[in-house]
Amino acid sequence: MGSMIITLLTDFGTRDPYVGVMKGVLCSLAPRARLVDLTHEIPPGRIDTAAFLLSNAFGYFPKGTIHLCVVDPGVGSRRKALVLESGGQYFVGPDNGLFPAALAGHRIERVFELTLSRVLRSKRSDTFHGRDVFAPAAATLARGVPPNRLGHPRSSLEPGALPTPLRTASRWIGEILWVDRFGNLVTNLPAHLLKKGAVIKAGKRTIRKIGTHYAQVTKGGLMALPGSFGTVEVSVNGGSASKRLGARIGTPVELR
Amino acid sequence: MGSMIITLLTDFGTRDPYVGVMKGVLCSLAPRARLVDLTHEIPPGRIDTAAFLLSNAFGYFPKGTIHLCVVDPGVGSRRKALVLESGGQYFVGPDNGLFPAALAGHRIERVFELTLSRVLRSKRSDTFHGRDVFAPAAATLARGVPPNRLGHPRSSLEPGALPTPLRTASRWIGEILWVDRFGNLVTNLPAHLLKKGAVIKAGKRTIRKIGTHYAQVTKGGLMALPGSFGTVEVSVNGGSASKRLGARIGTPVELR
Amino acid sequence: MGSMIITLLTDFGTRDPYVGVMKGVLCSLAPRARLVDLTHEIPPGRIDTAAFLLSNAFGYFPKGTIHLCVVDPGVGSRRKALVLESGGQYFVGPDNGLFPAALAGHRIERVFELTLSRVLRSKRSDTFHGRDVFAPAAATLARGVPPNRLGHPRSSLEPGALPTPLRTASRWIGEILWVDRFGNLVTNLPAHLLKKGAVIKAGKRTIRKIGTHYAQVTKGGLMALPGSFGTVEVSVNGGSASKRLGARIGTPVELR
Repeated sequence: MGSMIITLLTDFGTRDPYVGVMKGVLCSLAPRARLVDLTHEIPPGRIDTAAFLLSNAFGYFPKGTIHLCVVDPGVGSRRKALVLESGGQYFVGPDNGLFPAALAGHRIERVFELTLSRVLRSKRSDTFHGRDVFAPAAATLARGVPPNRLGHPRSSLEPGALPTPLRTASRWIGEILWVDRFGNLVTNLPAHLLKKGAVIKAGKRTIRKIGTHYAQVTKGGLMALPGSFGTVEVSVNGGSASKRLGARIGTPVELR
Repeated sequence: MGSMIITLLTDFGTRDPYVGVMKGVLCSLAPRARLVDLTHEIPPGRIDTAAFLLSNAFGYFPKGTIHLCVVDPGVGSRRKALVLESGGQYFVGPDNGLFPAALAGHRIERVFELTLSRVLRSKRSDTFHGRDVFAPAAATLARGVPPNRLGHPRSSLEPGALPTPLRTASRWIGEILWVDRFGNLVTNLPAHLLKKGAVIKAGKRTIRKIGTHYAQVTKGGLMALPGSFGTVEVSVNGGSASKRLGARIGTPVELR
Repeated sequence: MGSMIITLLTDFGTRDPYVGVMKGVLCSLAPRARLVDLTHEIPPGRIDTAAFLLSNAFGYFPKGTIHLCVVDPGVGSRRKALVLESGGQYFVGPDNGLFPAALAGHRIERVFELTLSRVLRSKRSDTFHGRDVFAPAAATLARGVPPNRLGHPRSSLEPGALPTPLRTASRWIGEILWVDRFGNLVTNLPAHLLKKGAVIKAGKRTIRKIGTHYAQVTKGGLMALPGSFGTVEVSVNGGSASKRLGARIGTPVELR
C-alpha cells in the first residue's frame, strides 16, 4: 500500500474546529493513516499562495503521500473535485488552478474527477466539502483504493500558474510570493541569479549586499540571499524585511 | 480495545507548551494512542463556546474516541473531574457544564467522578489539571481500562446548556454562537428555517438573500445559508460578515 | 529501540510551511516515529525563551524521546550542530546555549557534534538547517542509529543559562521568563518561597494575596500562586496579569 501519509493544507486556520473535524473523518475512514499539517494559515481564498507553498513542500514527502489541499472559495458551485497523481504522490482538492500551479514543471500522470456518489458522506453540506468530499476521498486513497475507482478520467484542468519573472534586456522583474513569519521576503526570482554584483530593488529600497545566511550581516542589516524555497529572499538580520521595505505578497522585485 | 483516538479541545492556545506537555503525558502513558487536536483557541474560559464547537465535532469521530476537553477556569477549586460515556465515546474534563451543553439531545449513558488518587501523577499542581489529572485519565482509558475503574458513579452534573432560539408569534430570535476565521456568523437557528422568503436581521442589517453556498453571490455580497454546523450562517462572499455587520458571539439574530 | 517520539520546538510559527516540510523529512526517513509539537511560537530568535519552555516540558516525555529544537538565528554561520544525551533522552539542535540552559541541573551524559556529511540531505541550504540537518539527524536517531554514529564527541558547549534569582539580605529579585496565553506571569522565583506573608512586587504593583489556584480570588482579582512551571506565577482571575501590570518577559519581580 506504500505510505499512508495524508498532509493537510487549507485556509481554515486553527481556531475553528474545521480541521479537527476533517481529521475525525480521516481517522474514521483510514484509521492507520498518518496526518501531517502543512499549514492551515493560507490567507482566506488565496489559491495562488496555497499553490506556492505546496510547490515548495510536497517534494519533501515520500512517494505515496496524499496531499489534501482545500482552499475552496467556490465550494458548492459547479467547480469539480479532483484526484491527481504526480511522481507517485496524490493530490486531492477542488479544480480551481491550485494543482496545475503547484505542480508546474512536474508531470501529472493521471487526473480523475471525483464522482461524488462514490465518496460522499451521508450528510453533505454545500459549504464544507473538505469534510464531506475531499477528506473521504483522501481517506479512501489511504486505504489503498486506486484513484480510478473514485471517479472518471479527465483530460483538462482549470488553468493555474504561479507568476513567473519577466526578463528584459537589462534586468529581471519578479515579485514577492510569500512573506514568512520572520518578515523574510520570498520572491520568484531563481536563486542562481544572485551572483556577485547583483543589485536588487524591492519596495523603493536598493539592496547591494548579497550573502548566503542571515547572520552574515550585523543585526538590522538588509541583504538578499538564496532562500530555502530555492529563490531569492530579502532579509533583515533579527528584524522584518517586510516592515523595513513596506513590501508584501505581490510587491515587484527587480534584479540586475 | 476499540479505537484509541484522543482528541484535545482546550483554551490553552499553541504558544505555550501546555498542550505539548499534555501530549507528553499522553504519549508516556498511552504510547499507541492517536492524538488529534480539535482546537486550542477557545477564548480563555469560554465554556459555552467550547461546548458549541465540541457539539459540532464529536460526531465525526469513530466509536471509542476519547475527547479530552479542558476549559477549566475553576481548576484547583472544588469542581469535580469527570469521565462520561455517550454513544460509545468518552468525554474527560472538569464538571463545569461543558459536557451537558455539548451533548444536549444525546443520551449520556454513564458518568463517573474521577477519584484523584487513581489517576494523579505524582506531582500535582493546583493550576494545571489538564496535565496532572485529565491527561492521565484519558490515557488510562486509551489503554483499555474501563471508566468505572477511574472513579465512582455520579448521578448529577453541573448544569450546562447552549442558548436555544426563542419562537414568538411572528419570528425566531436566536444568537451568534461562533464567528469563524472567514468572518462567517454561525447562529443557533436551525438550518431548515431558511425557506424562500425568509428574512434575517443581524446587527442592524437585514438579509434577504438566501442561498446554499458562498460563491452564489457576487464578491462582497451578503447572504444567509445553511452552514456546515447545521444552522443558519450569515456570510459575505470573499469578506467578513462579522466586520460588515459589527456582529460577534452573542449578537442576536432574528428570522421571520 | 525504545520510544520513537520526536518533539518539535521552533520559532517557525505555523503560517509558514517550514514545520510541515520538516515533518515531511522526518516521515520520509523515520516512517514510524511519532511527531509531537511542543510549540512553534517561540518569539523569533529567542533562545532563552525556548530554553525555559523546553526545561519545563521535556520531563513529561518518556525515555528515548528525541527533542528537535531549532531556534537558530546563526543558521549557516560557523555555529556547530549537536546531539546531546541526558537522562535517556536526546536533544538535537544548534550549539547556541539553548541546551545547557534548558538542562541546567540535569546531567548531560554525552555530547556529539554532528558531522554534516553523515546527516545531510542532498540539497542543503544555508538558511534552513531544521530541514536539511537537524530533522535528518533526529530521524536517524529515531531509526535506532546510536548518536556516536552521527558525529564526534565534543567536550564543550556554547554557554547558556537561564536567569537565576538574586538573593539579598531582605528579598529575592527574580524576573518574568514567560507570559502565557492567559496573561499569567511566569517568574523564575521558586514556588516554595511563596509562604504566608510573602509580598510580591512586579511592574510597580504590590501583590499581597497568595493563593493556590486561580478561582480563589474574585473575578479580576490579582494574586500570586505556585504555578505549573514550579515557580511563582502572578495571575488575574479571568483577566491578564500582563496587561494589568504592564509586565512582560524580562520585567523584574521582587519577593520579600
